[in-house]
Amino acid sequence: MKIFIAQQNYHIGNFELNTQKIIEAIKTAKAAGGDLILFSEMTVSGYPARDFVEFEDFIEKCTAAVHIIKEHADNIGVLIGSPVKNKHLKGKDLFNAAYFLYEKEVKAIIHKTLLPTYDVFDEYRYFEPAYEWNIVEFKGKKLAITICEDIWNLGDNPLYRICPMDELMKFNPDIMLNLSASPFDYTHDEDRKAVIKSNVLKYKIPLFYCNAVGSQTEIVFDGASLVFDKDANLMKAFPMFEEAIDWVELNDDGLMNGPILEPASRIPEKELNPATLDPQLNIEQVYQALVSGIKDYFGKMGFTKAILGSSGGIDSAVTLALACDALGAENVRAILMPSPYSTNHSVNDAVTLSKNLHNPYDIVQIDQVYNSFLETLQPLFNGLPFSLAEENIQSRSRGNILMAIANKFGYVLLNTSNKSELATGYGTLYGDMAGGLGVLGDCYKLQVYELARFINRTTEIIPHNIISKPPSAELRPNQKDSDSLPDYAVLDKLLFQYIEKLQSPANIKDQGFDAALVDRTIKMVNNNEYKRNQFCPIIRISPKAFGVGRRMPIVGKYLS
Amino acid sequence: MKIFIAQQNYHIGNFELNTQKIIEAIKTAKAAGGDLILFSEMTVSGYPARDFVEFEDFIEKCTAAVHIIKEHADNIGVLIGSPVKNKHLKGKDLFNAAYFLYEKEVKAIIHKTLLPTYDVFDEYRYFEPAYEWNIVEFKGKKLAITICEDIWNLGDNPLYRICPMDELMKFNPDIMLNLSASPFDYTHDEDRKAVIKSNVLKYKIPLFYCNAVGSQTEIVFDGASLVFDKDANLMKAFPMFEEAIDWVELNDDGLMNGPILEPASRIPEKELNPATLDPQLNIEQVYQALVSGIKDYFGKMGFTKAILGSSGGIDSAVTLALACDALGAENVRAILMPSPYSTNHSVNDAVTLSKNLHNPYDIVQIDQVYNSFLETLQPLFNGLPFSLAEENIQSRSRGNILMAIANKFGYVLLNTSNKSELATGYGTLYGDMAGGLGVLGDCYKLQVYELARFINRTTEIIPHNIISKPPSAELRPNQKDSDSLPDYAVLDKLLFQYIEKLQSPANIKDQGFDAALVDRTIKMVNNNEYKRNQFCPIIRISPKAFGVGRRMPIVGKYLS
Repeated sequence: MKIFIAQQNYHIGNFELNTQKIIEAIKTAKAAGGDLILFSEMTVSGYPARDFVEFEDFIEKCTAAVHIIKEHADNIGVLIGSPVKNKHLKGKDLFNAAYFLYEKEVKAIIHKTLLPTYDVFDEYRYFEPAYEWNIVEFKGKKLAITICEDIWNLGDNPLYRICPMDELMKFNPDIMLNLSASPFDYTHDEDRKAVIKSNVLKYKIPLFYCNAVGSQTEIVFDGASLVFDKDANLMKAFPMFEEAIDWVELNDDGLMNGPILEPASRIPEKELNPATLDPQLNIEQVYQALVSGIKDYFGKMGFTKAILGSSGGIDSAVTLALACDALGAENVRAILMPSPYSTNHSVNDAVTLSKNLHNPYDIVQIDQVYNSFLETLQPLFNGLPFSLAEENIQSRSRGNILMAIANKFGYVLLNTSNKSELATGYGTLYGDMAGGLGVLGDCYKLQVYELARFINRTTEIIPHNIISKPPSAELRPNQKDSDSLPDYAVLDKLLFQYIEKLQSPANIKDQGFDAALVDRTIKMVNNNEYKRNQFCPIIRISPKAFGVGRRMPIVGKYLS
Repeated sequence: MKIFIAQQNYHIGNFELNTQKIIEAIKTAKAAGGDLILFSEMTVSGYPARDFVEFEDFIEKCTAAVHIIKEHADNIGVLIGSPVKNKHLKGKDLFNAAYFLYEKEVKAIIHKTLLPTYDVFDEYRYFEPAYEWNIVEFKGKKLAITICEDIWNLGDNPLYRICPMDELMKFNPDIMLNLSASPFDYTHDEDRKAVIKSNVLKYKIPLFYCNAVGSQTEIVFDGASLVFDKDANLMKAFPMFEEAIDWVELNDDGLMNGPILEPASRIPEKELNPATLDPQLNIEQVYQALVSGIKDYFGKMGFTKAILGSSGGIDSAVTLALACDALGAENVRAILMPSPYSTNHSVNDAVTLSKNLHNPYDIVQIDQVYNSFLETLQPLFNGLPFSLAEENIQSRSRGNILMAIANKFGYVLLNTSNKSELATGYGTLYGDMAGGLGVLGDCYKLQVYELARFINRTTEIIPHNIISKPPSAELRPNQKDSDSLPDYAVLDKLLFQYIEKLQSPANIKDQGFDAALVDRTIKMVNNNEYKRNQFCPIIRISPKAFGVGRRMPIVGKYLS
């Protein structure tokens, strides 16, 4: 049996585009004699469609798309994902479903059982979980069809009381097929391979896993679809971060033709109690995820050109390099806005950077704007000493100049704030926190340096001086980040324990961090929820990014 | 049996304050010879604690608070709410629970069954639903204890497949007790009374319902706790929007001493298929909810003083009046910032308003700042004609001036945008969309006028001219909202059908709206998701507010 997998990048709610892509893939598979083609979760609508699925009209459009696609599923079996109405009176209105199409008919509809409702996921908000299970018969084989999370409970996942594959095994299936939309984070690639393999080892039948690819606002889907034979040998590994269609010939014995990419013995199994040690960051994957995030945000919003403030600091340098890669250097305009407190070095470094990247840049002085604010406010400020208010005015003057140019010429402003700053509230609302997309908002400062070194891996694109000088906001004479914040080497590790690991102050202190610093830092994190609440979407690369996956009360009084 | 209800306003995560409040109420009830005291849902932590509950430390603090409170539950039964650990290995880590405390012991822990996961609610994100039920015996009576949503499925709620009160009735309980944290919207007061009464009619035993009061960022809890005797006569109705403690003497026959406030026959029952007609807006309730929202946002964030831009328009006038009521006029500073395109009338109206309200105000000219932006940008703008970019510069100049004064003196900036503007994207990011709290962001323009008339019900506080003149942003000569937007009388109704009623374009057109207008308006709503995504929290008064209860994809391509 020749089984195809189509790893595609959908646009949420763009039924015309998605349907066309799906039909193209079916045609390719048919032309190559495919028996069956497997797509990712929520194929027709894109994932996550969020509250769009609460519109009846949206669901009708999904169903209409399925029926258009059905006409192409004549002599090939097609597995696509779509929301589907719950016809029973009780329970949520919808199921997260897979349609099995064949002979131009809907042969079966399979419902998802395990509905992730944590971090960035809200599936129980919309969907009723499956409470009945069955296999699908196709060309003499019994197919066990599951959707994403359904194969992530191997009996050891404390989130769920049901294991849908255990239920399906009662029907003695021959093949497992899984439709996924499983987002990237820097821990995910290894986890995924281990979990898929563990399913094969447990159930002893081959598994075809199709994952979505491409970014949807903040969430990056990395593809990397997989095929394992019944002995848990890896037979096919799709690329990360790009579309692909490929196939495997499955024999009756559950083995497959073609070379074994990785024998079962070489792939680690899923650990039942994974260590809580920090994973090794694969910086190339992070880089690709960020490029994908920028590219798809612009592509799907219908924009082509970006603008950003280039300060001569590391964050804007890395953002600029990423944007030039994602959008083409000619489409990324850097604005250098030195203030009275900027060093000459900063401007020179920023100029060199843009020359290295070949992107257009302008120098705009903010003095006149800054001074006009001070003069206008003078009667009210009444001689009070220079304070944070004046620093913020500088930052907002820059933000306004960037937004004005963006509005005038149709650019999207890229934000350059990093995760360490966002965590501690070290940023100005409507100033350096302005922008349409937070490129580095899920990267701690030290990870930004890692990205810089990766960008410079073959040639010096980011000037050495930008990497080596001490970080500064340059909002008052000789200012350094270290005046207000602890050393990033300490701060980032502390933040990681609180934000990613949800550790208590006591636990973090037990790890050797200074007690007063722990209390002060956590207080900064919790007191700045109101600022992050107004921040733009952040490209997610970690298992716990600020934004949609981390939902904190603003008026809370916990550790604050 | 003398049963007390304590309707209180908790602060999320402020265990010290909450515990102290709870103990005070217990002492009051004990001093008056109470047998039992009922509190609201998630008493010790405040509701909704959101992702705070994912911290083990937070749950330990909840448990510690329960054990402190337990020591006061000696000769009185105490029912309080708290998250509690799920001791089984499978399912989510926590239950949303009620503790029954008596004789200084934890006599029972009751788990919530129906976990609202829609609109502003995320309970399935954190909690495992109950799957076993039992009653609690107390002084010869059998108590059926439920939590909030548990009594909102009368067998007809399509969201759920279980009816927990049906399960509890198998044990022949004598009394229903419900701990709630059920948020206000302008449809809720009538609904609540009808649902509570319908439970009594169905199960034929008395019901004690305790609801939380006070605002938590965007969500307003309105209290209005209720007691019904077994014949569904209303025996006690707590006030809305304020704390209260009160009691009822329950007789063995299920009836109660004291006057009947409303006989069963006069209270409508819950309609099984409620009409989809718009509810009659109770503008006084909306007004009170907004005042509560402002007051608690400031109180719980630890702020006392507000600032806002007073333009001489209706939105800022109503916001200013609400803020003066909530915070005291002396704590609300209005900044009048006429531009070259403002009429003299606007300034005069704004001055009269502040004189009527007795709040401090200043006039700040924005010309110099605006011109300095234009001059600074002149080399880049290069003679291009006046456009939206210049309008936005004016709006952002104002936003920056307000933020600068706020930063200098410790004010919180109140935002004055209304729901019609936010829906259509008729506002400037970082300009008039700046602020810490969106006071009117859930009120359509016509509802803002209703509020103005309510504010003026006894004397003219908002000058007549502000109410009668055509709305304008005054960002270019003779500008009117109606240049860019349809008439609010049409627009608001259309938006209501799409946003609150989730109607399709076809359905809205069938109601008689102009077809092109429907398409254009819905497109505006969907294309401006990116702007609303960066907006501050909005005090919620409708069943579908922008913000946490409405989650749309930003890169989506549905009806856009």
